[in-house]
This record gives sequence, structure tokens and C-alpha cells, in this order.
Amino acid sequence: MEQEKIKKRKIMLIGTGFVGMSFAYTMLNERGIDEMVLVDVNTDKAEGEAMDLNDGLVYANSKMKIKAGSYEEDAADTDVCVLTAGAAQKPGQSRLELVKINANITKGVCESLKANGFHGILLVANNPADIMTYVAWKTIGLPQNQVIGSGTVLDTARLRHSLSRFLGFADSNIHAYIMGEHGDSSFVPWIHTYIGCKSLLEYLDENNISLQELQDIYIEVRDKAYAIIERKKATYYGIGYALKRIVDAILNNEHCILPVSSYQNGEYNRSGLFIGTPSVVGSNGIERIMALPLNENDQNRFNASFDTLEKTIRDNLGDIIDLD
Amino acid sequence: MEQEKIKKRKIMLIGTGFVGMSFAYTMLNERGIDEMVLVDVNTDKAEGEAMDLNDGLVYANSKMKIKAGSYEEDAADTDVCVLTAGAAQKPGQSRLELVKINANITKGVCESLKANGFHGILLVANNPADIMTYVAWKTIGLPQNQVIGSGTVLDTARLRHSLSRFLGFADSNIHAYIMGEHGDSSFVPWIHTYIGCKSLLEYLDENNISLQELQDIYIEVRDKAYAIIERKKATYYGIGYALKRIVDAILNNEHCILPVSSYQNGEYNRSGLFIGTPSVVGSNGIERIMALPLNENDQNRFNASFDTLEKTIRDNLGDIIDLD
Amino acid sequence: MEQEKIKKRKIMLIGTGFVGMSFAYTMLNERGIDEMVLVDVNTDKAEGEAMDLNDGLVYANSKMKIKAGSYEEDAADTDVCVLTAGAAQKPGQSRLELVKINANITKGVCESLKANGFHGILLVANNPADIMTYVAWKTIGLPQNQVIGSGTVLDTARLRHSLSRFLGFADSNIHAYIMGEHGDSSFVPWIHTYIGCKSLLEYLDENNISLQELQDIYIEVRDKAYAIIERKKATYYGIGYALKRIVDAILNNEHCILPVSSYQNGEYNRSGLFIGTPSVVGSNGIERIMALPLNENDQNRFNASFDTLEKTIRDNLGDIIDLD
Amino acid sequence: MEQEKIKKRKIMLIGTGFVGMSFAYTMLNERGIDEMVLVDVNTDKAEGEAMDLNDGLVYANSKMKIKAGSYEEDAADTDVCVLTAGAAQKPGQSRLELVKINANITKGVCESLKANGFHGILLVANNPADIMTYVAWKTIGLPQNQVIGSGTVLDTARLRHSLSRFLGFADSNIHAYIMGEHGDSSFVPWIHTYIGCKSLLEYLDENNISLQELQDIYIEVRDKAYAIIERKKATYYGIGYALKRIVDAILNNEHCILPVSSYQNGEYNRSGLFIGTPSVVGSNGIERIMALPLNENDQNRFNASFDTLEKTIRDNLGDIIDLD
Repeated sequence: MEQEKIKKRKIMLIGTGFVGMSFAYTMLNERGIDEMVLVDVNTDKAEGEAMDLNDGLVYANSKMKIKAGSYEEDAADTDVCVLTAGAAQKPGQSRLELVKINANITKGVCESLKANGFHGILLVANNPADIMTYVAWKTIGLPQNQVIGSGTVLDTARLRHSLSRFLGFADSNIHAYIMGEHGDSSFVPWIHTYIGCKSLLEYLDENNISLQELQDIYIEVRDKAYAIIERKKATYYGIGYALKRIVDAILNNEHCILPVSSYQNGEYNRSGLFIGTPSVVGSNGIERIMALPLNENDQNRFNASFDTLEKTIRDNLGDIIDLD
Repeated sequence: MEQEKIKKRKIMLIGTGFVGMSFAYTMLNERGIDEMVLVDVNTDKAEGEAMDLNDGLVYANSKMKIKAGSYEEDAADTDVCVLTAGAAQKPGQSRLELVKINANITKGVCESLKANGFHGILLVANNPADIMTYVAWKTIGLPQNQVIGSGTVLDTARLRHSLSRFLGFADSNIHAYIMGEHGDSSFVPWIHTYIGCKSLLEYLDENNISLQELQDIYIEVRDKAYAIIERKKATYYGIGYALKRIVDAILNNEHCILPVSSYQNGEYNRSGLFIGTPSVVGSNGIERIMALPLNENDQNRFNASFDTLEKTIRDNLGDIIDLD
Repeated sequence: MEQEKIKKRKIMLIGTGFVGMSFAYTMLNERGIDEMVLVDVNTDKAEGEAMDLNDGLVYANSKMKIKAGSYEEDAADTDVCVLTAGAAQKPGQSRLELVKINANITKGVCESLKANGFHGILLVANNPADIMTYVAWKTIGLPQNQVIGSGTVLDTARLRHSLSRFLGFADSNIHAYIMGEHGDSSFVPWIHTYIGCKSLLEYLDENNISLQELQDIYIEVRDKAYAIIERKKATYYGIGYALKRIVDAILNNEHCILPVSSYQNGEYNRSGLFIGTPSVVGSNGIERIMALPLNENDQNRFNASFDTLEKTIRDNLGDIIDLD
Repeated sequence: MEQEKIKKRKIMLIGTGFVGMSFAYTMLNERGIDEMVLVDVNTDKAEGEAMDLNDGLVYANSKMKIKAGSYEEDAADTDVCVLTAGAAQKPGQSRLELVKINANITKGVCESLKANGFHGILLVANNPADIMTYVAWKTIGLPQNQVIGSGTVLDTARLRHSLSRFLGFADSNIHAYIMGEHGDSSFVPWIHTYIGCKSLLEYLDENNISLQELQDIYIEVRDKAYAIIERKKATYYGIGYALKRIVDAILNNEHCILPVSSYQNGEYNRSGLFIGTPSVVGSNGIERIMALPLNENDQNRFNASFDTLEKTIRDNLGDIIDLD
């Protein structure tokens, strides 16, 4: 057979639960991808999902092939791999409680990817996401820039949506990040938030809105997963689009800033773990971290969030991965 | 408040199960819609789903508002309403077994729509779809053209996808319909199938493919819902896109031919029910039915399919709707 | 004939030169619009352009109808009207030199729109754009918010693109406006510019980039129209997308901030004219102007730009429109 | 520098006249392409066009890089090259009159592509298109399947659009090809035309429409280029989308049937030239030709069209390319 004339792009989804599948479903609208492979320990499930997605293709934009696949056949030429395999967060359960179960799953998956020659970009989205990203990186043997956690991309979308509604501007004009752990210790550095090119704090001042009102919105946003889980038992549509956003940034080499979970080298005074910080994402993964000058309060919050992750890892993962 | 300068478009989803929500999720990519309202007897569920969808909006194409709503507030100015409320098909259960339960649900929904001034286009997708479309039309008091069943639009997508793979042509070049009941009595009028502008039967002949091979593909397609349900317990992504396809045709006034379930006035020799036949869909709903000259065999199949629906209605719905 | 069930949206383009047609051509990708009408004093030209666009529709996303139309038939139910009619800028010619010729054209067009019941949103893009927007508003008898000039939306796109390339971030992360006249007296308030949520000036500092380098980029951007005109005699693709961006914001009720030319009521200390300032755009046109606190230098530049427009109007348009 | 992790896709446009640039402009909406390179003998023009396109990128879907380039730098890693360089058709001038001038241009371009290691898919669109495709193939030294002419893809779009309007169905449901030369000797094999899955001739019969009415529409379509040229001096928007359609089919490996100009190996009884016939297009270029069984009349038309091309080549190109 003759060589293909057009360079092919392939993405792989590992874990066909609702989070992974919501991501996969949004990709049916995306052009420029040749193949999407679904991998699940439950191969029947992966097959059923591929069948269901394929039924949508006829009326969708994408022309890609979708199939249930395997590490052996598909890892080596995959460009971007999205890892969502793991036990789901249950009502009342914190993201950290899942840690041991999912660390073992993540480790196993990454060993399989490595053993089968995967050398693309790995996006980790199973919870607790920052810790799983660390586990993945420790296992897979790829450079720091090629391992990315979903971080606070969803949290930030939620914040921007809520602020958009509250303030009456398009969400595309709300420039603000939730930083830190994808979890309860996250925080918003409010002095670095803007509406278009206007300081959000100045805007509050001029319009007699107290920062407390925004802080209340943040609290609501932080707890939104719980609120949704209460109502519909799980959350997956929001994260589906957040994952698509990151994958698009990689595939299209966007060099865009997203609060993904990225490996820290002291940009925020701490090192050695993955945590949600505004990072430039392109076709080589994470190109650099944007260092915002945090005020004392925000730096303390960042440290506390980092400490939480560090402690969780130290307390739980010593017998799963090498912690040195 | 001043009058809005741009005419607003509003769609309503009734029933926030996986089928309805998969449709709603695909609409996050669509422009030109101002509002999407989710309605469910479980108002918590509708609210949770709206929250989850809203989290995706920041990274999606659509700029619409999404909310949990109600008949009272939202029915009167809805342009297109998609009805998916109903009990789901269980493993091993045929679509017809659901009939009484879902007929009562459909009737109740349509009475509420009517009572609250809905006068747009109604797309019915709960199972058994052809019968529910009839129940909806009997209840809602709208002209025949404004009530549309999802019909065999999904079945046809499945067929085109499978033939596309088998024959090696783009699905957009496979012109073929599954007709009749959205269910076990459906059929393909093979003499009216084409690859591009080439008769499919001629193509088979020239390439030594027997019609039986295609008929086997049809059987696989007909039973695909069961095969998917076996593997993932339910099917919803395929139907999500099928519903989007129909709603797009309405909103964009496409005048395109889709095998929706439409009210028969003798185009295929039978009258008085809704059944899957190629129909022209635009902003007024169903504009006309395309009458293909069926051969004796296919006409018999059509009649059998029609009879099945008629009998199910007569046997089951006499005490729910007026059958005259 | 029965009433249409889906609310129809109609846009009108006045002036089928390259600027207008580049806009029209981009709209072939947009959904949610039912009709696009081309109007030109040269009716043959409008007809030819409609024919050529229609040939593209088969392979495009849009399903709209495109036709050459007229004020009499089409003004009353047009939602958004884009005015590009006018003499084009010639090599070496400044935008202001076109003023009298185009003021008369603009006046005539707006009288026709008014006489035929147009009551939608008017987007003015013929040059000099800020002045033509004023002429249009004085003539057409619509509220301030319904008349919008293209302003510095294109200039700002050029700036963001150039900074994006120079700094190595996605243009979507470059938050900066060119303000003032769409012309030589425009300026960038650099203290209100950001990369993501990071102050651009801080970033320069940290990376040993002098502000002069950015100011040089601004100069290049300001003169880019001349540079393009030298090479290809005219510019139209960039402005085509800028107009599409504004029209999308209106049609989708985005509430997004764009540096359009909007009527000033003292937000930047001056009143009574249209000039490029960051403004919130939605389906009612301009919702409000974002007041950035300009430093003395920038305020002086704004005043100078405003003065230029005021003087040009006073000196040239007294016998065309009522200046009180 | 580290190896890129995502496979990059690059397209090249040769010739930045209105046809080429209209194609390039539509590509600003397309995802999954990393770079578009503009090449023109007038390097200033190519540079100016790249500048103008880049200004549109900020508000467009694509994230690609656009630049003026050269064979030396860009040919070797280009995936798809679109050739539109050539003198344009003038009012009253037939496409064939351009033949010698454009053959020399085409030959020169293809020699440069070859010399610089181009080995992708070449799409030829300068007029007379079928003959230029032959010249390109004779010069460039690539397999038959990698050289594609724009053929009757635009003519067919025009026909489908006109029939769509006349008959009241979506153009996506009009299945019909214009075949033969992209020029005056083209023809429609009416017995192979359909509305959805219904024979068009049967439909005419049932609705008392004479075939002559459709044949009149064909004549109008055939002469549409002249009609547009009369009104706006040139045609380019329609062909812009036609070229995009073909390039999309290649990039997305669609296996779709398009009436491109493809090398004949007796599928329609003739061999050795390129002419518009329904052909399956994917990422390796032309996969196969769909052989429709022409009736005697249509076969005669095909032969006449083929003869026209053959004679033009024999009479005009003997001293430009090797005709054996």
C-alpha cells in the first residue's frame, strides 16, 4: 500500500465513562482529526460507545473514524491522549478520597501507553486531577511539557460564566482564573481579573458592587460540582467542553493561556508538582507558565493549595509511585 | 424596556434523560438560537442539566441562554419543541411495549403545551416514536405539518454509515432510506438507493456483491439499538445528532428530505397515521411527502409496518385518546 | 399563505464593493440567518454578486437566501444593515479626504432606509467611518444605540495579531484596544493592555522589551492599510471579518466588548460624536461604553482624535447635514 | 529544537488573483490546517494578500499561519497545493483561448514544484482547467491520482443551486452532475439525476414539468460565468467554495464523489486525458472514477467533449509539452 499523502491525526480516549464520552461526543463537531480511538477495560462498553458515536457522524461535521481500540494497536501513533479512566466522584465524596484507587488505575494506563510507544501529548482528567497528572508523569517517562492536567479549566469556565451573568458582559470578556488545586483549596487572585481591558476591582468600585459578592460567586462555583451532583448525580457536560478546549489548543498549536495543571518549576515559588496555573498550551503541550505576581494573601492560598496536594501525595502514594 | 431589535429564537426540550440531553448538548455548537429551555417533571434534574450545559457554553460556539423552564413561562414563544419525555427502552424490551406508559406522558405534555399557547413546531422522539407522534398530534391541536416524529432518521443514519464503511464511499454519497415504523417492521426499498448518482443495485451487480449482503447490513442496523444497549445499557448519542439534524432543517428552513415520521394522506396508499417516509422539512415543519413508487414487495412491507402501528394504537390507546 | 412558524432574520448589505462583498462572503459560513440582500446603485453589480455568492452556497454552511434587493422591498424587515457604499480610499489618499463624497452617499442611503421603514441596527463602515456614522445617525432618525460604526475593530484586530506574533501568545489572549478615530489619530492606551490576566507593561519589564518596540508595532499597524494598498491596491479581507465579528455580536446578542465607533455621552469627557471606544454590543446595538480611566497622555490623544473628527465635520459637512 | 508532537498540515496556493484568494479567504474558517502559503510571481501581491488575510484571522475559526512563501522553502512539506495562477478569462473570451498562455505558466509552476520536492496532492484550477490539469500532470511527474482538476465541481454546484430553487428542494437533495469539459461542451446525463432517492425524470413526469425546462436551466448554468462576468467583470466566489470543497475532501479523507477533472482510463470509453467525471476523492487524491452507464446520446456528448479537449491539446500544446 502506498504512503498516505496527508498527515493523519489521531486522538485516543482512555475511559468511556460520562466524562470521557461527553468529551468524545463534542469532538464529532471538530474537523482535522482522522481517527478517534476509545479504550476501556470494559471492551464491550468501548465498543458500544463507538457504535453510538458512529451513528451521530452522518449528521456531524467531523469525518473521522471512530473505533474501540487498544494500547497495542493504537498508542504508538496517537497524537493526543485523554485519560479519564477512574472511579467517579460520588455524592458527598471529596475529590481527594478517590486518590488511591485512581492512582493505581492511572499508573496502569500510563505503563501500557509507555510500553506501546506512546510519545504524544497526554491530557489527564481523572480525579483528583492534579495528583493523577503527577502519577501519570512519574509513570509515563515523557518530558514535563507533554503531560497536562485538566486543572482548573472547568472551574474557570464556571467562574467566567457566572461572572458573565452577574455583570452582564460576554464570558469571552471576563478574564479571570481560578488557580490551584482542582478542588476545595482553589482560589481566585482577584487583583488579576478584568472585564475586557478594565480592572474588575475598579469596575466593582465604580458600580458599588462589593468584592464579597464576587467571592460568594466563587464559593458557589467552587461547590458547583456538588450542586450539580445533587441534582443529576454526576457532572460531565461542562468538563466535556473543557477537555475539548484543551485538546483544540494542542491540535491547533494555539499558544493560548489556559489554567491547566502544569508542572511547577518555581514560577509561583513552589516546584515538583502539577497544579492549576495559567499556562501557554500549543502543539508541544505546555510551552511556559504565566507568572502572575500574587499578593501575600493569594500566595498564601497558593501555598496552602500546593501543600494540600503535596501532603495527599506523600500520605497516600508512597507505595504506588516513587516519590523522590 | 425597549423592544428587542433582533428576532429571538427559542427551543424547548421536554424530558432531560440521556436522549434529550445528548440532543441539547449538540446544540451548544449551533448559532442562531437565543434560548434553550429544559423542562422535566423532575425539576431538580432539569436544573442540574442546565447548570452542567451552561458550564460548557464558555468554550462552545453557541451564545444562547440555557435554563430550566416551564410550560407556563416558556411554551408560548417557543419556536421548536423537542419531546423526549418518557420511560426508556429496557434491555430486551421492544419499543411497542412502552406504548401505554409513554402515551399518557405524551398526552399530558401536549395538553400542557396547548394550554400555554405553544404554536410552533413539535418534534416527537419518545418511543414508540411513530405512535407517540400520533398521540401528540391528537392532543395538541396543531395542523399535521407542525407535528413531526423522529421517524427513521436515526435508522437511516445508521444504514448510511454502515453502507459507507462497507462500500468505501462517504456517507454523504449514500442515498438510501429506511422507511416505515421506527422499529422492527421497518424496511429499505433497495430499488430506490444510490451511490452518488449511480443505482446501488447496478453497483452491486458490477462488483459482484449480492443484495443479501446489504440486507444483512440492514438487519444489523435494525437491531443496532439492541446491540448498543447490550454493551452500554442505552443509546443516545446517535439519536442526539438525528434530532439536531431535524431541528436544524426546521430552523434553517432547509426544504430538505428526511425520513421523519409524517402524517400520511395516501402518498403511500395509507392514511391517518404518522410513519417514517421521506418528507421535505422546513420552517413550517413538513412541507410534503416524497412519494417513491414502491414495488409490490416493498409496498407489502410498508403496509405491514403501517398495520403494526394501526393495530398497536387500536389495541392500546382507546382509553387515552379519541381514535376516530 | 400561512404565517411562518420560525422567526426569520434578514441582513442587508449596501454597497457591493470589495469591502462589502468580503463581508458578505464570510457570512456564507454563518447559520441562523434567513436572507441576505445586496443593494447597490449599480443594480447589475448587485445582481452579479448575488449570483456569484449563490454559487458558493451549495458547499457552504449557511442555508440563507441571497438576492439583489432594494430599499422598497427589503428595508422594513431587515434586522441588521451594513453600509459600505462609498468611494474607496486611493493610494496616498487619507481617509478624511473622502469625506464630502461619502457623506452625500451616506445621507442618501439613510434617507432611503428611513423612508422605507428600516428600524433595525445600522452598522456603518464606509470611510471615514466615524464621520459617516455620525452622518448616518443624523439622517436616519434612530436612537444612538442602533447606529454603530466599524470604528477601530479592524485596527484592533491588526494590533492583536501583530502583538500575538511578536510576543508568542494566541491573539485571543492579547487584550488591547486601538481607540479613537479609525485613522491616523488613533492610539493605544498601553496601561490598559494585558496578556491573559497579566499586565502587558509588567510583562515587557520582566522580559526586557521596551515599550518603544510595541509603539513601533502600533505605528506599523496604524499604517498597515497603506502598506497593503501599496501591495494589492486595496484592503478588504481584514475588514470583511471585522464586520462579520460585529454583526455576529448583534445577531447573537453577545454583550461583548468591541472598539466600535459609538456615540459619546461624556464617557471619555467628550460628547456628541461617534468615535472608537470599547463598547458592549448586543442585539439592541450598543448597550454601554466601557470607560477606561485614561492617563493624561492618553486623554490628550483621545481629545486630539475627537477634535480631528469634530473639525472635519464642522469644516466639511455644514451644507450636507444639520450640525446643531 | 524538539520535534513537533502534532503532525502539521500545510496547504499552498499558487496564484493570488481573485479566484485563488477567494479560496484562501474561505479557508480562514477551516480547522486542522497549520499553515497556508501564498505564492505569486508578483511577490508584493502575495505579501499584501497574506497581510490582508492575517487581519481577518483574529475573528476567524482557523488558527493557521499565513505567509507569502516560495517553492524553495515551502513545496517539499506541502500537503495540498492549489494552482490558480494564470491569465483570467476576459469578457467574450472562451476558456480555450487562454490555453497557450496558461499552459506555459502551468508548466513553469509544476517544474518548480517538482524541482523543490513537492509530493502531495495537486489541485489545478486555472483555465481551461481540464487542459491545464493535463499539462500539470505531464510536467510534475506524480501519479495520476495525485493530480486533480477542479473540473465541473463549480458547474455542478450551479446546477444544483438552480434546480434547488426551481424545484423547491434543498440543494443537498439534488443529485446531478455536469460532466465533461469545464466549458461549453459540458452536459448533464439527465437519466442519472435524482431528488433524494427519487428519479428526477419521474418527478418531472408526475409534476408536468418538461425536460426542456431543465435543459434551459442547464444552458443558463453553462453560460452563467458569462452572465456574471457581464455584471461584475469576473467570477470568483463560487469557484472559491468549489475549491474549498475539494480540498476539504482531500484533507478529511472523505472518499466523497465530486465531478473533478480526473485522468481517464476508459471508464467512459476514452483514455489519456483529464475531464470532469464523478470521482471519489480522499487523502490520496482520486481513488476511482464512478462509471455511470451513459445512454447513446450522453456518450456522444461525452465523446464530443473529450474530442474538444484532445484537439485543443494537439493543436496548441505540441511545443510546450510532450504529447506522446
